[in-house]
Amino acid sequence: MKLPIVQSYAGFAMALAIAFMTVHTKATTTDLINEQQKANAQALMEKALKSDLAYEIVESLTTEIGPRLAGSEAEKRARDWGVKLGKELGFDRVSVEEFTMPYWVRGELKVALSAPYAQELYATALGGSGASTNNIDAPIVYFRNLDEIAYVKSGDLAGKVAFIDGDLMVPSQTGAGYGPSNQKRRVGWQHAERGGALALMIRSVGSNSQRFPHTGMMSALEDKWASIPVVALSNPDADQLRRLYKLGEPLKVSIASTAQWKGDVSSGNVILDLIGSERPEEIVLIAGHLDSWDEATGALDDGAGIGITVAAAKLIAELPTRPKRTIRVVMFGAEEVGLLGAFAYAKKHADNLHNHVLATESDFGARTIWRLVSNVNPDANATIDAIGKILEPLGIVRGGSDVPGGGPDIIPMARAGVPTIRLEQNGMDYFDYHHTPDDTLDKIIPEELKQNVAAYAVTAYLAADATADFRPEAKTRSEED
Amino acid sequence: MKLPIVQSYAGFAMALAIAFMTVHTKATTTDLINEQQKANAQALMEKALKSDLAYEIVESLTTEIGPRLAGSEAEKRARDWGVKLGKELGFDRVSVEEFTMPYWVRGELKVALSAPYAQELYATALGGSGASTNNIDAPIVYFRNLDEIAYVKSGDLAGKVAFIDGDLMVPSQTGAGYGPSNQKRRVGWQHAERGGALALMIRSVGSNSQRFPHTGMMSALEDKWASIPVVALSNPDADQLRRLYKLGEPLKVSIASTAQWKGDVSSGNVILDLIGSERPEEIVLIAGHLDSWDEATGALDDGAGIGITVAAAKLIAELPTRPKRTIRVVMFGAEEVGLLGAFAYAKKHADNLHNHVLATESDFGARTIWRLVSNVNPDANATIDAIGKILEPLGIVRGGSDVPGGGPDIIPMARAGVPTIRLEQNGMDYFDYHHTPDDTLDKIIPEELKQNVAAYAVTAYLAADATADFRPEAKTRSEED
Repeated sequence: MKLPIVQSYAGFAMALAIAFMTVHTKATTTDLINEQQKANAQALMEKALKSDLAYEIVESLTTEIGPRLAGSEAEKRARDWGVKLGKELGFDRVSVEEFTMPYWVRGELKVALSAPYAQELYATALGGSGASTNNIDAPIVYFRNLDEIAYVKSGDLAGKVAFIDGDLMVPSQTGAGYGPSNQKRRVGWQHAERGGALALMIRSVGSNSQRFPHTGMMSALEDKWASIPVVALSNPDADQLRRLYKLGEPLKVSIASTAQWKGDVSSGNVILDLIGSERPEEIVLIAGHLDSWDEATGALDDGAGIGITVAAAKLIAELPTRPKRTIRVVMFGAEEVGLLGAFAYAKKHADNLHNHVLATESDFGARTIWRLVSNVNPDANATIDAIGKILEPLGIVRGGSDVPGGGPDIIPMARAGVPTIRLEQNGMDYFDYHHTPDDTLDKIIPEELKQNVAAYAVTAYLAADATADFRPEAKTRSEED
Repeated sequence: MKLPIVQSYAGFAMALAIAFMTVHTKATTTDLINEQQKANAQALMEKALKSDLAYEIVESLTTEIGPRLAGSEAEKRARDWGVKLGKELGFDRVSVEEFTMPYWVRGELKVALSAPYAQELYATALGGSGASTNNIDAPIVYFRNLDEIAYVKSGDLAGKVAFIDGDLMVPSQTGAGYGPSNQKRRVGWQHAERGGALALMIRSVGSNSQRFPHTGMMSALEDKWASIPVVALSNPDADQLRRLYKLGEPLKVSIASTAQWKGDVSSGNVILDLIGSERPEEIVLIAGHLDSWDEATGALDDGAGIGITVAAAKLIAELPTRPKRTIRVVMFGAEEVGLLGAFAYAKKHADNLHNHVLATESDFGARTIWRLVSNVNPDANATIDAIGKILEPLGIVRGGSDVPGGGPDIIPMARAGVPTIRLEQNGMDYFDYHHTPDDTLDKIIPEELKQNVAAYAVTAYLAADATADFRPEAKTRSEED
């Protein structure tokens, strides 16, 4: 296993002890968190940095369940696994909330250059792609980027295969390059279909220079999905096409795809609760998602999120007393195919979302957390700041207090007004593996995973035990209850 | 494109100028190389570090020809490309020497875990593998390493698929880990067949932690090749099998392979000569190989070697006069499948190998050269040392003077007594890409390729123009001529 520079957390215990001594002398600046809470936070942090639990959970999920496409039999096995895990770890309440979803499978795909010479191209069907009704062997029409294909008129691409190139995604700590790069994956098919293309190929959205193309869901247009095959080519294969195009070679490609929609099936969210000791109806929600893309075992996306949040909650459960509020771990189902579990949760709990005091999701891999951002009632910002202070020895800085979004599966409840925070992971190499066959267990650095658990345990515990209320107009709401 | 630390050669020209001034004042220690030769060497080095030619050659070969399996139509196109290139670049003599070879193709391969659950495994057929006569779906018998399977007796593996695990190859600058790791690829099948296995899977030989398995030729046993499918699993897939095995899960795998031998076909070596001005019959041979494995465009293996050696010779051709001896660039055919071009060359030129004064091959990727080793007449070691001194500003150290082997395709002629040197490249990440679908142009760092060209140009020029004779009993031989 090889990855870029790995931060070492050896000697963390000593660093923490020193850091806490410092915090102690400045107690007045953080008196929103009392001495007992600080001691518990320190204990959680130290235990988390020594615990292998999160890694063991990811290892178990990826090894014993394997790939777990939304709606598949494997995702069902993952739910059963999640229930069993929750019970074994002693959560107070374990439940599954099922929902129905449309099921798409990629089937088989073969893509090969057929002129100027035969060469297999490494490609993956995008989520929602159609099949090839006949095997396609057709000239390629090259588009430099999504903007170029937007001008295509009806019939312009009849009998052709469109290829949208574009540049290699810019890697960054925040993952900021993903959104722009991803647009061609989302809506490119709409232009290709309008033009009458037989199929669409796009340059892979990922930042990797390996021959693993990046899959992911397309966007439906007025509830309609692509009827033609839509595939991503790995970056080296896209480079090759670009070079051949620049040489002026006549390019042809053959595409055979059996992707299809298979009707409605069941998925579900698994919910593990640690019931609060004083305000059990109030919920601090930490989440990951249980489904993965089908081409890999989803260690980074999102086995890591499951491991981090479950292990963090388990450490909190081992404290002498439960925090005041309920801590809820949600293992969302069917995230990859459109946040279906998240929308199902928000719908089912619509009448109780006002009791969701704070929500966040770990769904950005397994590298270290470097920043805490939030979007809560401004009156409670000081408490988030104080939590941020406690997290400093883990190498975490306090970011903006007006940053919406607590993770993909938090979007539906955030829209309904649930306050959010995010413990931002270093995403510099996340899109080298994300949504590719290469998202496997060996990509996780155990020491970095532990830092994540420490941050989640401390944050969830302090938020659940805090006096502050993070909700907008919190007082009005609690009077209404 | 992302790769580990890249050495910068910016400012090389100035560093060279300073280095040469130093060498100048110590002229007496290197008087085996005269002032004119030193000036020419410096000019070659400076030009090479500014020249894009080698990269352009690799780009052309990998883009315009693509993958070029030994014996294939694509390898024939590569020979035509090589001839055209040699003529365009103004070599004095361009020729092709054809030979006949048995042709193996991998066909289609599907490998998937079928118990405890269904998961596609990323696998590649090893060169010489047999096909599955019926589709195989059978229990896996796990062997920790090659030693373990060596004890298998006839019938022990009837109805089973053997899996030889082993550890991840140790990466190193010299590539020393490859030989030991490779043994299971070479001879594992012989044990599996003896045991009556339906098929053999081995852990990929490469050092990469990506889901690209490493292909490569097996060894025949008394002219017999494997009759069963023999495949390598990517390291993450082998990890997964190992974990499942340790959990005690009953493991089953399905394998369908259409690999086959297709009878005899033509391959060939392309030879580009710069004819020597004083001793044209004496040959300094620098080589790469033209064929690649079929799953990638073979940029590192061995497009780079072709680019480096052709560009180096072209720079020498641009000097005001030809060096005394002939410089021969050989683009060997069919290297990957058993050094077939190299054996054909040694056989065809058997009566003239005594005129091969020195031989070497670039076939270890495209990273910088760090060491010069040799195996020549001890009387000529001082001249090799002097060449090493000239190479120092490129960051190259002088290694052993008793190190046999000038590269794979040099083996047959070295066995016949041809003296060899090797300009050793940094192989730390070579086996992350070698023999995988990921051996593509983006893995080459242009600045590092230039350093290779500089070293080859200087070395080939000085060896061809040197007074010293590198051959064993050189005098006796020249008297015989």
